[in-house]
Amino acid sequence: MAEEKWKTAITKIEPNKIAMKGYPVEQLMGQIPFGHVVFLLLKGELPSKEQGLLMDAMLVSSIDHGATPPSALAARTVASGGASLTTAMAAGISAINRYHGGAIEGCMRVLLEAVEREQGSGKDTATVASEMVDEYRAAKRRIPGYGHRLHTEDPRSVRLFALAGELGMSGEYVEMAHAIRAAMKEKLGRDLPMNVDGAIATMLCEMDFPPEMSNGIFAISRSGGLVAQVYEEQARMRPMRPIDPSAHEYDGPPERKVK
Amino acid sequence: MAEEKWKTAITKIEPNKIAMKGYPVEQLMGQIPFGHVVFLLLKGELPSKEQGLLMDAMLVSSIDHGATPPSALAARTVASGGASLTTAMAAGISAINRYHGGAIEGCMRVLLEAVEREQGSGKDTATVASEMVDEYRAAKRRIPGYGHRLHTEDPRSVRLFALAGELGMSGEYVEMAHAIRAAMKEKLGRDLPMNVDGAIATMLCEMDFPPEMSNGIFAISRSGGLVAQVYEEQARMRPMRPIDPSAHEYDGPPERKVK
Amino acid sequence: MAEEKWKTAITKIEPNKIAMKGYPVEQLMGQIPFGHVVFLLLKGELPSKEQGLLMDAMLVSSIDHGATPPSALAARTVASGGASLTTAMAAGISAINRYHGGAIEGCMRVLLEAVEREQGSGKDTATVASEMVDEYRAAKRRIPGYGHRLHTEDPRSVRLFALAGELGMSGEYVEMAHAIRAAMKEKLGRDLPMNVDGAIATMLCEMDFPPEMSNGIFAISRSGGLVAQVYEEQARMRPMRPIDPSAHEYDGPPERKVK
Amino acid sequence: MAEEKWKTAITKIEPNKIAMKGYPVEQLMGQIPFGHVVFLLLKGELPSKEQGLLMDAMLVSSIDHGATPPSALAARTVASGGASLTTAMAAGISAINRYHGGAIEGCMRVLLEAVEREQGSGKDTATVASEMVDEYRAAKRRIPGYGHRLHTEDPRSVRLFALAGELGMSGEYVEMAHAIRAAMKEKLGRDLPMNVDGAIATMLCEMDFPPEMSNGIFAISRSGGLVAQVYEEQARMRPMRPIDPSAHEYDGPPERKVK
Repeated sequence: MAEEKWKTAITKIEPNKIAMKGYPVEQLMGQIPFGHVVFLLLKGELPSKEQGLLMDAMLVSSIDHGATPPSALAARTVASGGASLTTAMAAGISAINRYHGGAIEGCMRVLLEAVEREQGSGKDTATVASEMVDEYRAAKRRIPGYGHRLHTEDPRSVRLFALAGELGMSGEYVEMAHAIRAAMKEKLGRDLPMNVDGAIATMLCEMDFPPEMSNGIFAISRSGGLVAQVYEEQARMRPMRPIDPSAHEYDGPPERKVK
Repeated sequence: MAEEKWKTAITKIEPNKIAMKGYPVEQLMGQIPFGHVVFLLLKGELPSKEQGLLMDAMLVSSIDHGATPPSALAARTVASGGASLTTAMAAGISAINRYHGGAIEGCMRVLLEAVEREQGSGKDTATVASEMVDEYRAAKRRIPGYGHRLHTEDPRSVRLFALAGELGMSGEYVEMAHAIRAAMKEKLGRDLPMNVDGAIATMLCEMDFPPEMSNGIFAISRSGGLVAQVYEEQARMRPMRPIDPSAHEYDGPPERKVK
Repeated sequence: MAEEKWKTAITKIEPNKIAMKGYPVEQLMGQIPFGHVVFLLLKGELPSKEQGLLMDAMLVSSIDHGATPPSALAARTVASGGASLTTAMAAGISAINRYHGGAIEGCMRVLLEAVEREQGSGKDTATVASEMVDEYRAAKRRIPGYGHRLHTEDPRSVRLFALAGELGMSGEYVEMAHAIRAAMKEKLGRDLPMNVDGAIATMLCEMDFPPEMSNGIFAISRSGGLVAQVYEEQARMRPMRPIDPSAHEYDGPPERKVK
Repeated sequence: MAEEKWKTAITKIEPNKIAMKGYPVEQLMGQIPFGHVVFLLLKGELPSKEQGLLMDAMLVSSIDHGATPPSALAARTVASGGASLTTAMAAGISAINRYHGGAIEGCMRVLLEAVEREQGSGKDTATVASEMVDEYRAAKRRIPGYGHRLHTEDPRSVRLFALAGELGMSGEYVEMAHAIRAAMKEKLGRDLPMNVDGAIATMLCEMDFPPEMSNGIFAISRSGGLVAQVYEEQARMRPMRPIDPSAHEYDGPPERKVK
């Protein structure tokens, strides 16, 4: 009966018709890039040109980070047991969880609370940032999204912030992200630049994504790298090998410039 | 020791440096769209402008197909048990396997064999197509990639073939795909248009992707839809509900045009 | 170097020697039943005869619950896409999460807190149970482990409590579980018997398992049913079928008695 | 409508009634050990006492093999990313696939074919074994189930064969397994004892299990060890650590005897 039907607001399927959030798929294809369609599916509306470019750059930023993240290692390990490409990929996706990628959601929650507090209190950004840093120190918690075990100045974060500036999309969350870094530098005596999780968190806040969605967006991005990692494992390596996470080296194309 | 290191040719990671297939990530970001970077990671080189557009359209074509495919149902069901977004998504990815999406690989193998046979024999396309159809009939096997339970003329296939034509990318595999349809129409008395699996298979052949990679590419595309499906399940539905695959209806934005 | 080695306290592997928690595997095999070895691996010591019997009965109680739980549906759905048996099984396992099986952990936490409160306060069991029920009502939360959408008197719970009694293993957690039921009956006017999650929670408390382990134990049990569900799906059903969770019926052996 | 219902022959669920293959669950609990109920669910009938003991010993034999198999490493790696216990466990299960555990199915197929050939031809066991070894050598393929990278005389295999002998369950498949070993020794000049995969394969043949089910049975067994591995990872290790598969050591209870 009609009243028993459950509802979905994503894609309408009828014979010879597929419409995503109302847009016929054949109009999207060839006209709207994949990254923009991801935005459409998750937010319900097509992005502005600037949002689309930022979203796309975000997806590119995290598409792969070599063979050491848990997602790549889990995917390769499952592939090594003889699983199909998508099964191995799925194990990699499921490694993206509370810690792996989780700092995006954590950082979004900090930025959302900080900006909300700023708006409700009339305090300026630096004051609110300073209070947040004090509170986290008192609770002996780290603010997620700052610092990286390897990259002291993450090229992905630098580029994302620069791009947001170029596109006129640096708003209150970008400002707050900088203010928190400055407050930490002053209070902790350490300059911890934003890592890519923090940069993505900032951009997702600027584009009004819900924090609960963040790891999913990271996983869409990383799905590209995981196919490459699993395919390489299946094509180049023998089955059932012990995969040492650190004992590997790059033997792909040498460094080159785009264009 | 150096000689024990295993090799990877995907991404080189050094402090403050991330290079994919040789290209620094910060140069790719904002300049090369996500779909093109997927091409880079999987093929080793950046696509031509035409290849990039076709690749991107392919990724858009399969990003979602509503709530009924096994991938969406598996992801929603796992979410319903209380799993995290990425865990549910992973179950959806693992549903893409031998049957779900598998026709892409099957169809690629048919097209690759047919074109190879054509080149080796001096026979024309129609003759080879006719022989292939005869052989499959004799073996009582279906040629994968033709026909759809719902779409008699799949808008995604139509658009992909049209786009390939516009971009000057309709080569011998497109020709063979048409020839096989014609041969089936003549011999079986049924006109079975290519479904989206077949259309993607044809384009992947034109761009020289290995068939073993095909379901991974489909999974990258569908990862976008799976995040939307799982997020909707978590946000709108009660946990542990029995998910009837057919008793649902669309209540999203009404049909509208791009631009 | 020795100081870099990470530690594991589960199984020692040497050439021709496999010892679990110190016991050579060949001594366990044929002498200690599987359910008891699960206890050994998770608790570090072999169970007493009574603990072993209770553990085994617990594992049997949850081995399968037909085709409707999310775990069975997710596993069947992934199998329907053409995944391998273990891939489909894995999707089923991952459906066992916060809600599916999660009441075991929730109920354990209630019982552990209640008994701890009782011991610390000198209050009697009924008083503490009454306070807990009041607190949950005030917070508008349900106490996990009581009531079932289908079973008003779950045969698995009845049997587990009876068995614990026969084995002399009904301690303070069993007493508290009964006291909470009585308090709810008095205050809510509804008699909600313990469901199987609640009964398992009670027994895991009696055997001093950590709550964080509970869903894992449930998953070990259900792994048996999942293999049966997936194998049946692969052997009896056509691929890619829409799996209606309610439209099925049992056609296996008619009811019969053990022995 | 009734004719649309799909069928399942595993468990019948009615209010307050749960019957597995016809047996009420409360009669199984406390009376039939878990390993025997697994046999019931997969084969449809309760095992004889001897079959039950062999099945149980088989499940114990493979419950864990330390931290190095792909299943343990994949599960630990996914746990390291912050996934829930069951999500990590699921990744471990999915690592059990074509190569990891897959030799059980491969070896079963060899034994089934060899015994069938023996019965159809009137040749004796040694002759058929010799032919099979010749055929595999000619095809440059290894017969699965023989040899182990670490164990030259696997204590699990030795115990399983001994137990089968004690229980009067050494039939034609045990005989063929020995004959193939002898033939390989003669022709290859190497004595390759059966590994645990081969031993399990032989026992599953003796108990008439279908080869397609074999990796599922292995996964039921290993599910016990995976919970222990994941719980230990979550309880003892820091998140996101690189997990070197070889750089670990055992620090659990010292060797001891059962009873």
